Amino acid sequence: VDLQIIRETLDGVASGAVSADEAMARLEGVAFVDLGDAKPDIHREARTGQPEAIYGPGKRPEQVAAVVRQLSDAGVRPILVTRATDRQYRAVHEVAPDAVHHPEAELIVVAPVDRSVPGLVAVVSAGTSDLRVADEASLVAEAFGLTVDRITDVGVAGIHRLLAHRSRLREAACVIVVAGMEGALPSVVAGLIPAPVIAVPTSVGYGASLGGLAALLGMLSSCVPGVTVVNVDNGLGAAMSALRIVGA
Amino acid sequence: VDLQIIRETLDGVASGAVSADEAMARLEGVAFVDLGDAKPDIHREARTGQPEAIYGPGKRPEQVAAVVRQLSDAGVRPILVTRATDRQYRAVHEVAPDAVHHPEAELIVVAPVDRSVPGLVAVVSAGTSDLRVADEASLVAEAFGLTVDRITDVGVAGIHRLLAHRSRLREAACVIVVAGMEGALPSVVAGLIPAPVIAVPTSVGYGASLGGLAALLGMLSSCVPGVTVVNVDNGLGAAMSALRIVGA
Amino acid sequence: VDLQIIRETLDGVASGAVSADEAMARLEGVAFVDLGDAKPDIHREARTGQPEAIYGPGKRPEQVAAVVRQLSDAGVRPILVTRATDRQYRAVHEVAPDAVHHPEAELIVVAPVDRSVPGLVAVVSAGTSDLRVADEASLVAEAFGLTVDRITDVGVAGIHRLLAHRSRLREAACVIVVAGMEGALPSVVAGLIPAPVIAVPTSVGYGASLGGLAALLGMLSSCVPGVTVVNVDNGLGAAMSALRIVGA
Amino acid sequence: VDLQIIRETLDGVASGAVSADEAMARLEGVAFVDLGDAKPDIHREARTGQPEAIYGPGKRPEQVAAVVRQLSDAGVRPILVTRATDRQYRAVHEVAPDAVHHPEAELIVVAPVDRSVPGLVAVVSAGTSDLRVADEASLVAEAFGLTVDRITDVGVAGIHRLLAHRSRLREAACVIVVAGMEGALPSVVAGLIPAPVIAVPTSVGYGASLGGLAALLGMLSSCVPGVTVVNVDNGLGAAMSALRIVGA
Amino acid sequence: VDLQIIRETLDGVASGAVSADEAMARLEGVAFVDLGDAKPDIHREARTGQPEAIYGPGKRPEQVAAVVRQLSDAGVRPILVTRATDRQYRAVHEVAPDAVHHPEAELIVVAPVDRSVPGLVAVVSAGTSDLRVADEASLVAEAFGLTVDRITDVGVAGIHRLLAHRSRLREAACVIVVAGMEGALPSVVAGLIPAPVIAVPTSVGYGASLGGLAALLGMLSSCVPGVTVVNVDNGLGAAMSALRIVGA
Amino acid sequence: VDLQIIRETLDGVASGAVSADEAMARLEGVAFVDLGDAKPDIHREARTGQPEAIYGPGKRPEQVAAVVRQLSDAGVRPILVTRATDRQYRAVHEVAPDAVHHPEAELIVVAPVDRSVPGLVAVVSAGTSDLRVADEASLVAEAFGLTVDRITDVGVAGIHRLLAHRSRLREAACVIVVAGMEGALPSVVAGLIPAPVIAVPTSVGYGASLGGLAALLGMLSSCVPGVTVVNVDNGLGAAMSALRIVGA
Amino acid sequence: VDLQIIRETLDGVASGAVSADEAMARLEGVAFVDLGDAKPDIHREARTGQPEAIYGPGKRPEQVAAVVRQLSDAGVRPILVTRATDRQYRAVHEVAPDAVHHPEAELIVVAPVDRSVPGLVAVVSAGTSDLRVADEASLVAEAFGLTVDRITDVGVAGIHRLLAHRSRLREAACVIVVAGMEGALPSVVAGLIPAPVIAVPTSVGYGASLGGLAALLGMLSSCVPGVTVVNVDNGLGAAMSALRIVGA
Amino acid sequence: VDLQIIRETLDGVASGAVSADEAMARLEGVAFVDLGDAKPDIHREARTGQPEAIYGPGKRPEQVAAVVRQLSDAGVRPILVTRATDRQYRAVHEVAPDAVHHPEAELIVVAPVDRSVPGLVAVVSAGTSDLRVADEASLVAEAFGLTVDRITDVGVAGIHRLLAHRSRLREAACVIVVAGMEGALPSVVAGLIPAPVIAVPTSVGYGASLGGLAALLGMLSSCVPGVTVVNVDNGLGAAMSALRIVGA
Repeated sequence: VDLQIIRETLDGVASGAVSADEAMARLEGVAFVDLGDAKPDIHREARTGQPEAIYGPGKRPEQVAAVVRQLSDAGVRPILVTRATDRQYRAVHEVAPDAVHHPEAELIVVAPVDRSVPGLVAVVSAGTSDLRVADEASLVAEAFGLTVDRITDVGVAGIHRLLAHRSRLREAACVIVVAGMEGALPSVVAGLIPAPVIAVPTSVGYGASLGGLAALLGMLSSCVPGVTVVNVDNGLGAAMSALRIVGA
Repeated sequence: VDLQIIRETLDGVASGAVSADEAMARLEGVAFVDLGDAKPDIHREARTGQPEAIYGPGKRPEQVAAVVRQLSDAGVRPILVTRATDRQYRAVHEVAPDAVHHPEAELIVVAPVDRSVPGLVAVVSAGTSDLRVADEASLVAEAFGLTVDRITDVGVAGIHRLLAHRSRLREAACVIVVAGMEGALPSVVAGLIPAPVIAVPTSVGYGASLGGLAALLGMLSSCVPGVTVVNVDNGLGAAMSALRIVGA
Repeated sequence: VDLQIIRETLDGVASGAVSADEAMARLEGVAFVDLGDAKPDIHREARTGQPEAIYGPGKRPEQVAAVVRQLSDAGVRPILVTRATDRQYRAVHEVAPDAVHHPEAELIVVAPVDRSVPGLVAVVSAGTSDLRVADEASLVAEAFGLTVDRITDVGVAGIHRLLAHRSRLREAACVIVVAGMEGALPSVVAGLIPAPVIAVPTSVGYGASLGGLAALLGMLSSCVPGVTVVNVDNGLGAAMSALRIVGA
Repeated sequence: VDLQIIRETLDGVASGAVSADEAMARLEGVAFVDLGDAKPDIHREARTGQPEAIYGPGKRPEQVAAVVRQLSDAGVRPILVTRATDRQYRAVHEVAPDAVHHPEAELIVVAPVDRSVPGLVAVVSAGTSDLRVADEASLVAEAFGLTVDRITDVGVAGIHRLLAHRSRLREAACVIVVAGMEGALPSVVAGLIPAPVIAVPTSVGYGASLGGLAALLGMLSSCVPGVTVVNVDNGLGAAMSALRIVGA
Repeated sequence: VDLQIIRETLDGVASGAVSADEAMARLEGVAFVDLGDAKPDIHREARTGQPEAIYGPGKRPEQVAAVVRQLSDAGVRPILVTRATDRQYRAVHEVAPDAVHHPEAELIVVAPVDRSVPGLVAVVSAGTSDLRVADEASLVAEAFGLTVDRITDVGVAGIHRLLAHRSRLREAACVIVVAGMEGALPSVVAGLIPAPVIAVPTSVGYGASLGGLAALLGMLSSCVPGVTVVNVDNGLGAAMSALRIVGA
Repeated sequence: VDLQIIRETLDGVASGAVSADEAMARLEGVAFVDLGDAKPDIHREARTGQPEAIYGPGKRPEQVAAVVRQLSDAGVRPILVTRATDRQYRAVHEVAPDAVHHPEAELIVVAPVDRSVPGLVAVVSAGTSDLRVADEASLVAEAFGLTVDRITDVGVAGIHRLLAHRSRLREAACVIVVAGMEGALPSVVAGLIPAPVIAVPTSVGYGASLGGLAALLGMLSSCVPGVTVVNVDNGLGAAMSALRIVGA
Repeated sequence: VDLQIIRETLDGVASGAVSADEAMARLEGVAFVDLGDAKPDIHREARTGQPEAIYGPGKRPEQVAAVVRQLSDAGVRPILVTRATDRQYRAVHEVAPDAVHHPEAELIVVAPVDRSVPGLVAVVSAGTSDLRVADEASLVAEAFGLTVDRITDVGVAGIHRLLAHRSRLREAACVIVVAGMEGALPSVVAGLIPAPVIAVPTSVGYGASLGGLAALLGMLSSCVPGVTVVNVDNGLGAAMSALRIVGA
Repeated sequence: VDLQIIRETLDGVASGAVSADEAMARLEGVAFVDLGDAKPDIHREARTGQPEAIYGPGKRPEQVAAVVRQLSDAGVRPILVTRATDRQYRAVHEVAPDAVHHPEAELIVVAPVDRSVPGLVAVVSAGTSDLRVADEASLVAEAFGLTVDRITDVGVAGIHRLLAHRSRLREAACVIVVAGMEGALPSVVAGLIPAPVIAVPTSVGYGASLGGLAALLGMLSSCVPGVTVVNVDNGLGAAMSALRIVGA
């Protein structure tokens, strides 16, 4: 959208319909709405295929709600709030009554898209404790219309559990692998299939797991080329990356 | 290939053509060739779409050459040696005279594929010092038949240089972004386009860049969801991931 | 058990009693029970001599209880929940009334084995503050039928306290040494006896002890070859390793 | 002031008006008031142009209030308490009824200067979650009489938002840039303008942002020479540095 | 310059002198010259008051020389190459015979500006081992026409050495403080004067100085608000920041 | 004491008064009392001049009280509990009614020694926030009969505050310097006086102070040889070291 | 041996054959030989079942040779020098002509034991680059009379390579697993077998593998209880631990 | 000395013999000689009892020699150069023919003091590889006239080696303990004796010893209060601290 607007502006200047001054103002004004503290980037979807998600921590409930309303008024969908608290949800719910809260994934979803994107995303998780992150990834992907196949509790301690799902893994266009502790699962998965593998380390584990850094470093050091990694517990990022891959 | 062999083995057992003992032996024997020290995984391409690459450091030249010969005899292509030294190259060259050495990228390429994979990969690099890593990514991708568009020296210090290439970026099915120092470039690129962005931190920079860890942490912490990251200086991994994405 | 099942399956295929399709399904189905979120690995004991332990953090009480019931129904013993909260205990207690809670060790034990394994395990701890980890190690070991000799408060600040117990140390088939702060005790113990020494760093100490990392690094750097190390505060892991050693 | 006093003292000794003993005592006594625990450095403004700010954490409310009263009696202005709690505010309010509390910035301001310092300071922040730190910087700068232009929510995910404000940026004599996550914004700003850029990393972000260290390291590694950096979340330090620059 | 060109372009479009297509091309073409690998940003001085410096490591001598020639042809001055090797200098010298090499500072200076910028910059260093970094800062500042007052070997081990130079410090419009080991000097200096203090940690010191990180962390944690910090050994960055401050 | 007992034991064996068996038992039994969980090392004072201090964290109140009673019955003095909670104090108070609680220093003192040790210890602290650690050091030193001169709030931001106390510093036989943030104070103090300087980093400061590690690293990297360092916030250790020095 | 000597000494004192003075001297003299710089601990085998190994780095060739000769004269066997250089080997060879040098494992073996210890040790390695560490472990184990089964190049990228060796793994009394990069192999192995698993991280891999720390942290964080870990590249330690386990 | 000069100066001013201007100049001039780059602090001994030592790295041979000559002309003794190279020694030797070079300790000693300081310093080292650091400590101490008792190769792997030297340890007025790897030795020593213990970590050991940081952290976390620590490999600092303690 915005490249078109720029082009139209330049054409308007060329045709005399738009003054140079107006053109400079319009180029600045076109892409976002000024909301005081927050400037939701309502054309990001046009540029990147992905609307802006709202990161909850450090924002007051009423700030979150104001941004949600603004995005909603602009027709953006889906609208997502991550790491959302109960209080943020209650504020959002007042401006967006159809908002859905997933407390374990700490996620609020408003206005999921109503079309289905072709291409299956598998979300594989190593242990029960990793489920909240896998849930965030799955719910965000679904809010964007992706179809998700959840494969849970298949950590490397019992490698046969994973091998039993090899055929499901092979059907996915993209696989998100969520694991804490030593973070070994993405390497094993990537050694079995040709699809892209997005690794998500989680902050699960004893002391030397360093709040997920051990898994993160392990995934980055994977002996299987082709594994890419997102930040610790970042289910949102993994889903957004899957959307870029599958939607490409 | 190997799933078929397993199935055929099971069918063989079912038909009586293969005994159970022989089946167990065959299942163990099918997937790799034993070469003493090294067991090149010649069927990895069948499983993952990607043959094994040879990681050079810590291997003697004659070890590297032996694995190259083994893979070559098995018809694997391309054969890649990363972080290769001159001495490793000379040993490889004796067993594979068509081997090509890219000294700056520390890469040996033997038998690149001769088909062209549809889908353009852009390899964007921030500074001249990042070129050797961008080269590794580009050369590996090309060895697999991908078409690469190199966009160099577009670091965020002069953001207009990047913006001028927006249309080239938009044509790529996948973008690899290589940057050292603060590693800010992938965020800016990902904010401009809808395609998947694979970030590669490089070990370029002064003390607090910590040999690339500053860029790595920055890329993992990107404020744009949908950026995924590979290890420091890991051009190979970025290319392999691009192959998984584009080839999917 | 599971190798037998695989062999029986192959034999069944060979004899015509089992079709190839059924064989593939059975190979996938044999080793675990699908419980939705969690897939308890009930045959792990058959493979490794050790049933799966349940890691408490991040699991809802009812999830923990469901896994306990599942393992209990499958006849697994002992069933352990580590880092267990009071609420998790109450949920477990409803499905397993004989469950015992050790709040300081944050451990729930259900159905300890009723045989005694030959071979004595000494659990040595440096200070009173290390007791909760030493307790976890001791209680887990005892739940598996091992006999444990607890030697407490023998830190290196008063080396004669340890030397006085040299004869008890020499009777153990395996010694677990639990220490925080500088973590020096395992080196001293390993210099006195021929048995395997498993070092457990604890998160006890001032700032530069870095939550147990100082002890961990010290133990890994021990000048006495033959000390092996588990994660910070990981009494469970130490006990499981002792079981592997003594039970071997 | 204090160099004059020293000079006057030496002159007094030279003239015989002051004894050498008295001179030594006076040189020690001149620069601060002894308050038992705390020695507020009331002449710091004379030396550095900046009175001492009070760092709240670890101080009892009555300690904070006593220092405020002391500084107030000495005519120091403004008086600032950073990382202030509600309880510290209530204690300060009793001794300084005009004290103003900014709870989100955790700042207490007493007796802001009533003159206006020429020179505009722009305070640019990347996301809504960075606002509390940007607020601290802005409020401190204003307490010293600086004029502040706040530009908020212009993170690099949508680089056009920043570019639209280029003219406002160009009017500032000094720009403070506040950003968490990958901390890329200062590099982009510094590439656009000639004024000094003070980068403030914030502790906003997922695991690998390491509580602001990822942003800190990124800013220190900036590819644009001329960016300087203060500590994580240190809005006060950024404002004080701006005051030194603009007031120079 | 470049905002003017943009404005002129828009005006040209408005007047019909420039077509919209041509305008888009011109906007892309105006700001840099494409040199294959490297795109020197010749208008950076117009935007930021500072031409691009060339970071030497990882660039071949002929690459460095080509960029120098390109910048020289475009009239950029000064041209700086940092962390330059002897071989890079020899290549540069062939294309720029007036290039001056400062081997200890690892700096090449071509075409220093011939005007003098008002405002004195003091460059203070703690020990003899810090001189190479202080030299880089001083030489870069002088290449831009700044006047530099070098104050060397005044580390905090003998605080009177620094106090003796208080009057020289007070005359500076900006003070760069270079120190390794514990990096305490910037705090002491900033407590004495009102001018901006730019701290440069150096990689001098024993093990726990961690290659300059101890000094870096110390400077960031300075108890004197108003100290800002650049990367380890980054004399260039300090000088560029001083130029922004003094030249503002 | 204990070397005498050993010698007496050997003499007893020589004279026939003691059997070899009894000698081995006595050698084990002489040095400590077995209390189940805790083995207070009541002869440590004999060996080291310092009785054992009780580290509070991770110990139940009744455990702490039992050890206090045991030490008290053995005539040990002083008895110290560090990092003590209110609940631990109440338990101790029941067994030792003369116990004194210093809540800010988190210290319990029972039975301070009633003699005065010659030699003055100066405890210097940088800021008000460092007082709780300086208090711990001072109170522990005083419990052992040392005379303490407290010099507070003399951080390097106003170096004249410290210089004014030079004569007090010169009278001390040993100086403990407590500082957070950049931890620069010990270097400055050690540059002024010939006495031993014990540096105590504190966990005071913003993000990059890393909970005291920045100060710790800075102190270890001090440019003044002769500064030694104890752990973060470890006032106890500093006092015990001063006792070793002054009491030697 | 040495406990006997102590007992004999005490008995001698009891019988009057030994004076108390002589007893104290003898107790000090019995356990080691004073060699000036080095005090080889020739009775360590008596205490721990393992003679002292000589750590090469930082020792002059003649120092190494002197210790070897001393141990050899005392009848110690085997004598091992780790991280040995060529020059150290040549010096050792002069005093011990039967010394064998394994340059890739950087190991010198003198006088291997000539008995065979029952119990098989499997040494499993992930990649060819890990071989030098696996070799150190294997050669040390063999020098002590252990039988070693080497299983090489079975990294998790092709998990079937490992599964094919399951029966060999099951025959081992103890398994040493050597892996770099993400260090995932020990978890997978430990999930398959009941024997003790000793994990050895190696310093193989790209930047974020941090010289083996990523593998180390991953192994410590293993989701399979019962994996213990030794230091990076510490093949010696793994072998010594295996000897303690198998020889117990 | 310098306090006297200041006092004399003030007295001179009081008596009219010295003008105020001259007094200010004299106060600045008294304490050091300006040598261009380096300002040797020749009165440091007067203030601290210790002349300045010269830290070699990063200084050119002729710079080192010039400072040595300057100190020599001023009568300073001893003069020490640490981390000295052969080339620095040769330059020093030309200006100070009696200079002695200790290559393993990387130390140059010129003009050792010719008096003997009462009080014995024990220098205890754990392994042969720690000798070079122990040598630095011993040689520096001896250059200042201290008497040193070297106790070598008494690491905790064979704790009886240390116990045998208890009486020598008890005679020392101060004990320096040098150890790498886990750094446990200082805790054990400090538990045996009442004298001050200065711990020196060394950079000896495998990967997770992190170049001495493991030992450093362990020593800082020592469970024996009264151990103080200097930087990694910092034998000089330990000796200087011992001098402060013994000479006090």
